[in-house]
Amino acid sequence: MEDRLKKQMEFMLEVDKSKFVRRQTYLSDGIRRENDAEHSWHLALMAALLSEHANETIDVARTMLMVLIHDIVEIDAGDTYAYDDAGHMDKREREVKAANRIFGLLPRDQAEKMMDLWEEFETFETPEAKFAHSLDCVQPLMLNDATDGKSWREHEIKRSQVMKRNAKTAQGSEKLMEYVNGILDKNVDKGNLKDE
Amino acid sequence: MEDRLKKQMEFMLEVDKSKFVRRQTYLSDGIRRENDAEHSWHLALMAALLSEHANETIDVARTMLMVLIHDIVEIDAGDTYAYDDAGHMDKREREVKAANRIFGLLPRDQAEKMMDLWEEFETFETPEAKFAHSLDCVQPLMLNDATDGKSWREHEIKRSQVMKRNAKTAQGSEKLMEYVNGILDKNVDKGNLKDE
Repeated sequence: MEDRLKKQMEFMLEVDKSKFVRRQTYLSDGIRRENDAEHSWHLALMAALLSEHANETIDVARTMLMVLIHDIVEIDAGDTYAYDDAGHMDKREREVKAANRIFGLLPRDQAEKMMDLWEEFETFETPEAKFAHSLDCVQPLMLNDATDGKSWREHEIKRSQVMKRNAKTAQGSEKLMEYVNGILDKNVDKGNLKDE
Repeated sequence: MEDRLKKQMEFMLEVDKSKFVRRQTYLSDGIRRENDAEHSWHLALMAALLSEHANETIDVARTMLMVLIHDIVEIDAGDTYAYDDAGHMDKREREVKAANRIFGLLPRDQAEKMMDLWEEFETFETPEAKFAHSLDCVQPLMLNDATDGKSWREHEIKRSQVMKRNAKTAQGSEKLMEYVNGILDKNVDKGNLKDE
């Protein structure tokens, strides 16, 4: 097998570990917590079918690939819970190291392309990165709503914390921010989210 | 919330159930079996990074979306194991019914687009569908190889059965078929696959 395909398949096998990185969000059954691969699959599908709600015109294919790879660094760096302030202190350093190792398994041109795409997501400047972040916030919110706020209740999350987490959602999509606000109102009313 | 986004989000929540559809293939840890969402995430990433190995030039974005949705019908119809001949008898009927129900949750234009894309995969005529099938065969093979043929050994699968399952792999990608042959030789040698 030629060296190029060999490297690509080594990468493909390595990223299988995304399926073992567990997030805080529960799946819609309210029993098992989601893993990174499942989450990323969901975001890619949303990127394809919800792109009409992005504030700006986006390159859908690039957005799909961006969300497919956005959490791969967590294979080494772990999932940092959105509401874990301490964990966010050294998050960047851990993730850059992970990106270099994991994307570095690919042939050099693809490794660079994937590093750039991951950095584009992190840097939050392009319409694609902004919309990808909107999806990354909306998808767990949808699942939290479906499970009657199970992970919010476990962590005693306040409405203001979810609002802070969603501070950038409107920058990617005003329309999805309306959806977020509707979900928040409903879950504060139900006592799933604490209000101040 | 406007009706269109409401329908889209109902679909997004419904397809969360893909995460509960378990396949026969074990993940690379050899402990847990893969689910449809994880499998589809892996295929979409492969579609993006291995497209250079397709026999014909493909529309990568369409191929990515095709593999993201190709197993959604299994939410209702269940996963039919590649080597379950009886299960394949009424597979088509079960899956068409499922496609109508699940994609039918979307706004009509998107429902039709997703039905067409799923049918394109099933019909195996376009370069995109052929390459998607190649990936759909190669990915579980990669995992089987990584687990020393665990699911092959459990089901006492023969080399000829895997070859039959991969009869179409070369139609999507000669290069990936070479990879398949290498994996098969190795696993027959190791006794993970029965030889005739």
